[in-house]
Amino acid sequence: MIKKLLCALLYGLLAPALIGVGYAAPSEPDFQAVKERYYKEHPGKGKFGDLWEPIPIQKYWDPKDFYKPPATVSGEVTRESCVTCHQAVTPGAFHAWENSSHAQLDRIRNLSNGQDPRFYKKEKLAEVEKQLVKQGLLKEGEPLKEVGCIDCHGSVGAKAIQHDKDLKMPDRAACGTCHTAEFAQAEAEKDQEWPQGQWAKGHPSHAVDWKANVENLIWAGMAEREIAQGCDQCHYQQNKCDGCHTRHSFSAAEARQPEACATCHNGVDHNEWENFTLSKHGTVYFTQGKAKWNFEVPLKDALTKGGYTAPTCQTCHFEFQGEYSHNLVRKVRWAFNPQTAIADNLHHPWFESRKQAWTQTCAQCHSPSFAESYLTAADKGTIEGIQVEQEAKKVVEALYKDGLLPGQKTNRPVPPKPEQDAPGGFFQLFWAKGNNPSHVERVYADMWEHDLIKLYKGLFHANPGGFTYTEGWSPLLRDYTLIMDENTKLREQAGKSAATGALSLASQRTSDEGDPARWVLGSLLVVAGTLVIRKRKP
Amino acid sequence: MIKKLLCALLYGLLAPALIGVGYAAPSEPDFQAVKERYYKEHPGKGKFGDLWEPIPIQKYWDPKDFYKPPATVSGEVTRESCVTCHQAVTPGAFHAWENSSHAQLDRIRNLSNGQDPRFYKKEKLAEVEKQLVKQGLLKEGEPLKEVGCIDCHGSVGAKAIQHDKDLKMPDRAACGTCHTAEFAQAEAEKDQEWPQGQWAKGHPSHAVDWKANVENLIWAGMAEREIAQGCDQCHYQQNKCDGCHTRHSFSAAEARQPEACATCHNGVDHNEWENFTLSKHGTVYFTQGKAKWNFEVPLKDALTKGGYTAPTCQTCHFEFQGEYSHNLVRKVRWAFNPQTAIADNLHHPWFESRKQAWTQTCAQCHSPSFAESYLTAADKGTIEGIQVEQEAKKVVEALYKDGLLPGQKTNRPVPPKPEQDAPGGFFQLFWAKGNNPSHVERVYADMWEHDLIKLYKGLFHANPGGFTYTEGWSPLLRDYTLIMDENTKLREQAGKSAATGALSLASQRTSDEGDPARWVLGSLLVVAGTLVIRKRKP
Amino acid sequence: MIKKLLCALLYGLLAPALIGVGYAAPSEPDFQAVKERYYKEHPGKGKFGDLWEPIPIQKYWDPKDFYKPPATVSGEVTRESCVTCHQAVTPGAFHAWENSSHAQLDRIRNLSNGQDPRFYKKEKLAEVEKQLVKQGLLKEGEPLKEVGCIDCHGSVGAKAIQHDKDLKMPDRAACGTCHTAEFAQAEAEKDQEWPQGQWAKGHPSHAVDWKANVENLIWAGMAEREIAQGCDQCHYQQNKCDGCHTRHSFSAAEARQPEACATCHNGVDHNEWENFTLSKHGTVYFTQGKAKWNFEVPLKDALTKGGYTAPTCQTCHFEFQGEYSHNLVRKVRWAFNPQTAIADNLHHPWFESRKQAWTQTCAQCHSPSFAESYLTAADKGTIEGIQVEQEAKKVVEALYKDGLLPGQKTNRPVPPKPEQDAPGGFFQLFWAKGNNPSHVERVYADMWEHDLIKLYKGLFHANPGGFTYTEGWSPLLRDYTLIMDENTKLREQAGKSAATGALSLASQRTSDEGDPARWVLGSLLVVAGTLVIRKRKP
Repeated sequence: MIKKLLCALLYGLLAPALIGVGYAAPSEPDFQAVKERYYKEHPGKGKFGDLWEPIPIQKYWDPKDFYKPPATVSGEVTRESCVTCHQAVTPGAFHAWENSSHAQLDRIRNLSNGQDPRFYKKEKLAEVEKQLVKQGLLKEGEPLKEVGCIDCHGSVGAKAIQHDKDLKMPDRAACGTCHTAEFAQAEAEKDQEWPQGQWAKGHPSHAVDWKANVENLIWAGMAEREIAQGCDQCHYQQNKCDGCHTRHSFSAAEARQPEACATCHNGVDHNEWENFTLSKHGTVYFTQGKAKWNFEVPLKDALTKGGYTAPTCQTCHFEFQGEYSHNLVRKVRWAFNPQTAIADNLHHPWFESRKQAWTQTCAQCHSPSFAESYLTAADKGTIEGIQVEQEAKKVVEALYKDGLLPGQKTNRPVPPKPEQDAPGGFFQLFWAKGNNPSHVERVYADMWEHDLIKLYKGLFHANPGGFTYTEGWSPLLRDYTLIMDENTKLREQAGKSAATGALSLASQRTSDEGDPARWVLGSLLVVAGTLVIRKRKP
Repeated sequence: MIKKLLCALLYGLLAPALIGVGYAAPSEPDFQAVKERYYKEHPGKGKFGDLWEPIPIQKYWDPKDFYKPPATVSGEVTRESCVTCHQAVTPGAFHAWENSSHAQLDRIRNLSNGQDPRFYKKEKLAEVEKQLVKQGLLKEGEPLKEVGCIDCHGSVGAKAIQHDKDLKMPDRAACGTCHTAEFAQAEAEKDQEWPQGQWAKGHPSHAVDWKANVENLIWAGMAEREIAQGCDQCHYQQNKCDGCHTRHSFSAAEARQPEACATCHNGVDHNEWENFTLSKHGTVYFTQGKAKWNFEVPLKDALTKGGYTAPTCQTCHFEFQGEYSHNLVRKVRWAFNPQTAIADNLHHPWFESRKQAWTQTCAQCHSPSFAESYLTAADKGTIEGIQVEQEAKKVVEALYKDGLLPGQKTNRPVPPKPEQDAPGGFFQLFWAKGNNPSHVERVYADMWEHDLIKLYKGLFHANPGGFTYTEGWSPLLRDYTLIMDENTKLREQAGKSAATGALSLASQRTSDEGDPARWVLGSLLVVAGTLVIRKRKP
Repeated sequence: MIKKLLCALLYGLLAPALIGVGYAAPSEPDFQAVKERYYKEHPGKGKFGDLWEPIPIQKYWDPKDFYKPPATVSGEVTRESCVTCHQAVTPGAFHAWENSSHAQLDRIRNLSNGQDPRFYKKEKLAEVEKQLVKQGLLKEGEPLKEVGCIDCHGSVGAKAIQHDKDLKMPDRAACGTCHTAEFAQAEAEKDQEWPQGQWAKGHPSHAVDWKANVENLIWAGMAEREIAQGCDQCHYQQNKCDGCHTRHSFSAAEARQPEACATCHNGVDHNEWENFTLSKHGTVYFTQGKAKWNFEVPLKDALTKGGYTAPTCQTCHFEFQGEYSHNLVRKVRWAFNPQTAIADNLHHPWFESRKQAWTQTCAQCHSPSFAESYLTAADKGTIEGIQVEQEAKKVVEALYKDGLLPGQKTNRPVPPKPEQDAPGGFFQLFWAKGNNPSHVERVYADMWEHDLIKLYKGLFHANPGGFTYTEGWSPLLRDYTLIMDENTKLREQAGKSAATGALSLASQRTSDEGDPARWVLGSLLVVAGTLVIRKRKP
């Protein structure tokens, strides 16, 4: 530690926080307080709940609000009968559980070799037992024997439940009963406040992703509920923990591998998985990591005992100043999507300190100079993307304002409530009818929600072909050309039409419409900001 | 078994068939009968065979019809010389074979430990020997010594062949000589009949994929034979078995892993591989499966001896009511692509019973209630996609009928025989000339053949971002906006043109063309169904 | 060897070179000569260097020209203190190095078992020591003890350096000091000359990829330097070796796996990674390779000691007539992109002999007949793609020549210097302003740079759905339809406009504009080749 301190000082002021805290001392959060807040701040159906009814599958995405036990199995089931019966009827679930830590507490308790990568679980088990004693769910000194079906689907320590009355699907608080530290850490994401109000308090984060889902206007308003529930399939982290720790292994080793993040963090709106995969970080993971690293060790030991020679999603995003936690927003800067309200404030201390924290993260392997240079390039590259997107935005908004979009006056149904019409809005990615959105609006929505985000994500995750070419910059420009073409065509056509008097669509345009110079200036026009694109920000 | 029965009953009526048959008792199909039918129903060049000539590479895709031994190696080659020579000239093929079961029959025969995951192969070997005795290819009681080059590329048990005369590339029947049960199972796919004639008998399936290929109109008609043979590279399963059991390992363990399906089941028209990869099933496979599961065990033992904690392509699609077989169509419902003829008949017992069979499949790990809810949501979500696609279809067909497509009257070559012109047809995905197809037709073809299929496949394979956003729903709407824009523009333009008299393109349109209200109604217009989109259905 | 010879002769004349040389005898290149040429031919900032200034991160992409040690750490650091300090401050880099061959030279030297897959490294170490003696960096008979931080970041064998003065980031020549054979092989790529001048000498290759980068017109000219440096993140192989041998493991085993190529060789302009992944080669790699192959063995032993049963990127592209080297261009034929200048010369001996060399490569596992048939089909399929692309090219160029592109006369800024305006040029993939490029030009640029390349790459890497459907042929046609539609519309509109006199855009068009027959002929028009598309060719 002294060596580390001396070297860090020698290494310069860029890395003071390397003198970090390692693994945080086991905190002792107040379970009751965390749980009460959890339920209090949970939105349930949310403020648009009167506009939609849950479909059956949604009882699994938000069990707290929608789950009811099936009537098909009635009567009392005991701790033992749960297991024996489900061994027969759902053997996959049984075998996963049977080989999990939950079913092998004694094996963990009896680990004597500190070199066993799972040795840390022994300490974790003691922490859990202490927590259960505190809650009155375990007697002082009594060892927790196992975590069986009934502990999670009934209640901790129950001997029997009524299958058709008591059966529940565990929520965050259920897991948090034992895993209180992780529950409290994850819930702490709600405390994040943005310095210039770029996002509402706590947003965006896993801790409020269900709220962001049900209070999203088009999600609440769209008629196709089976499509809408597809959003829930990722946006349920606020509700339960099996998004990362899949049933019924609940394996920490699994959750430490990037594939655990991939189901949600891929694709057109945030291609983190693809970026990691195609970065050099990914190369090392897939060639060396899969063959040699030990994912059983906790994240704090990844580079040492774990043998990691490259980062994973988890080693960077769970870390903050050398400490690892289930609060993943402590280094968030650009968050979900690049926007001017962030670009314009990067020099604010809130953003600066987070950039410094990132530098430390990268500097576990790279020099601070490399890290700082890379992060700065990524910031600037992101801003270069915003400039293209903003130019297109003004063009699309002006077309809307001028009533020139195809079908705008003749065939533009309004979106379903609570959504309101707007050009290039988020809703236009998930709803369309007649000429709403016009194609050019939809293309603009793709620009800000897809191209620009992928540019930003590709830059920060070091996927070079990704952000320059395959995704990001080059597609951003392709969409830009379509918008500029369409603008020129629609305005020329309006000018011609006005001249021939065949249509009055462009009556509000002035006579300078025919002036070529006007179009050269077109992209520089500042349109009054009254037409706000409805982004995801809740 | 009794326990399983009792629990299943307790578990309710949803899962009666869990009292399944496990691994089907080794059937003893009549090889000669299966073989005769195989050749009889094989289409060879198919009914459009006079329109195309095979290019050299196609002798490998359909060896039965096109393969001729090379003249470069002449004279007799013995069982031994095949091996020694190919060890030198094609060492990759030799080493793969050398480490395969085919070259190690004695090792399999001598397995004494029933715990060895390959132990089941001992029984399989006995089954093969019995089959060979039946065919007169092995003496009663004589052990099969090895399966060498000559057994497959000449004939079973041959001592020598004429390399330039007798050499053959094995077809399904050649593999079926030993692997008769699997051959018979795979061929049984041809027996499937659709209750409302949605597809021709046996279609779609691996067992008739070559027929579907050579009798596809644009495949037979297109001039670019080197592009067309790209289709063959997947559509040859009817011809040979190395699509899944790759040369020269023919490894069952390899064929049990999802990557074995990936070469054909990926991409724009059926992205099963991407969906599996990005589902939680995929996460578990890539994190736990690759590290710990034993792919040597047969599928029936996957969850138990194999340690599987999630499904693979194979565990779900080879299974039917607890039995595993090479007949993969026993639970098919939506098949290759969503269509109204299926959507409108889902309550028919044929579809209902298959949904129930799927529920049982999912219920190996999930509750029947979860399975049923999920499958219902997937059905309904698929239908929601069909509705968008059908609306666009009517618009495109009306444009075609009204002669309003760009260049329709001036630059629309007819497609090559035996194809016939139609708006938004399958052929327009693989052929284009002048203004056939117009861009809007091609976009519509992408809607029904790509977007809608990916929506459906993403839903059923539980890839949430896939079906809502990256593929499926959101791209379906993007294409929809382009079609609606184009419709409005072409009809407005036709109206204007009619007014100015400059073009007579729209002469058949009535004077209500200029009425804005008309376009609001446009998408509701029911166009007479005389313009049939030429789908893949053979 | 005699057996191999006899069999090869028996096997016919197609495979004479199978009597290859195995692993080339360790060459003894002249390090000084190679190094001098390396620096002499290195372009530094290149011929457009006055147009751009490096941003900070670029000091890592071209350290030779831009790297300066940080001022934050001053004073002398010793061989030992480098290690101890960096163990604390960059533990990830330290641990990677600690487990690398560089830190374990004695372990390699003491290998006694010739069966150890790393045994070949013992010979390699002796070769390195001999090289160092030759350069006066090691005494005759003195064993090289380790390769530590200081040897690469200071100078070989140094005891101490001034951290703020002497610290360097290693370039190709630094690695080549020890790894001289590989350095010389890699540099030999510069010697390649194309028979008809399709590419400049040495291009395209890793050995000149930095030159190709900095002398690319739009790279040099574009204002967004943080986007431009994204190109550098792949185009730095000319500068350093860690593109394949990642820091600080520098693992040969890692570099032998396809993922090592994936970071650069993926995506829209050359989807080799996707093609391999989705080919049967990939299937075998991911199922059998990842589980069983030994990547520690050198490539020449891959099929034998390594147990490979399928090729990797490396086994095919490092090989030439049985010999493996870091010169990867010895079998290059179509190179980066398909073009008529190659298509028209495939029967030239230069191309023919390379095709034969490829046949030998494939014939390690496949028959020469299969290999030859496949390669011929891939050639012809590529040419079929070129025909579609060339037809579209003529249409776009004619629109440009006729001044009919949207906004061409009113809102078409010129691209930044040194770029010059042209229709459908490479620059239009990375730069856009106003109506330059028009959407139709950008779509054409996507055709030749993306669709056509992916068609070609998919064909040659045996990804069937890739080249026919998901990428390649079908997208090529989709883009074609957009171009043909736009051509028809723009010309019809110009005709109409001319008729009404509203715009003079089309004044140069003749009166046959209205003749439908004209458009049927449109695609056959031969446009004078004066408008040259600016491709990547330097």
